[in-house]
Amino acid sequence: MKETATFYHAGCPVCIEAERQVAAALDPQRFDVQVVHLGEQRGLLAQARAAGVKSVPALVLGGLPFHINHGADLSALG
Amino acid sequence: MKETATFYHAGCPVCIEAERQVAAALDPQRFDVQVVHLGEQRGLLAQARAAGVKSVPALVLGGLPFHINHGADLSALG
Repeated sequence: MKETATFYHAGCPVCIEAERQVAAALDPQRFDVQVVHLGEQRGLLAQARAAGVKSVPALVLGGLPFHINHGADLSALG
Repeated sequence: MKETATFYHAGCPVCIEAERQVAAALDPQRFDVQVVHLGEQRGLLAQARAAGVKSVPALVLGGLPFHINHGADLSALG
């Protein structure tokens, strides 16, 4: 069974670059990558915060938050 | 031909977590992942800087630097 990797972003240029390069580079044999745009899916902000996400873009892998460069703080999104 | 992805780290706990989770999650069909310990391979600091790496852990993918969380500034390494 594949592991879910969640990529949180907010549509910013830094986010798009990270999605195209890092999220897209994950092994599709092992991971289902879910992409969440927190600017459009604000209902998932609490889920992101619960996973330890403090800024976007971020990838949650194995239950751990990995912030990739810095686009925007989560506090700027709501 | 596979693309080279370079993971720069300095042996710190944040680095090790990123290596185990993110660098290890890359698609082995598409990427050759090189792991560089900048504390032990200081001769590669210039190469890391040239790629835009400012802190470790960082992954250079597609010629772009992706800083993953924050372990140490490159300036602390030499």
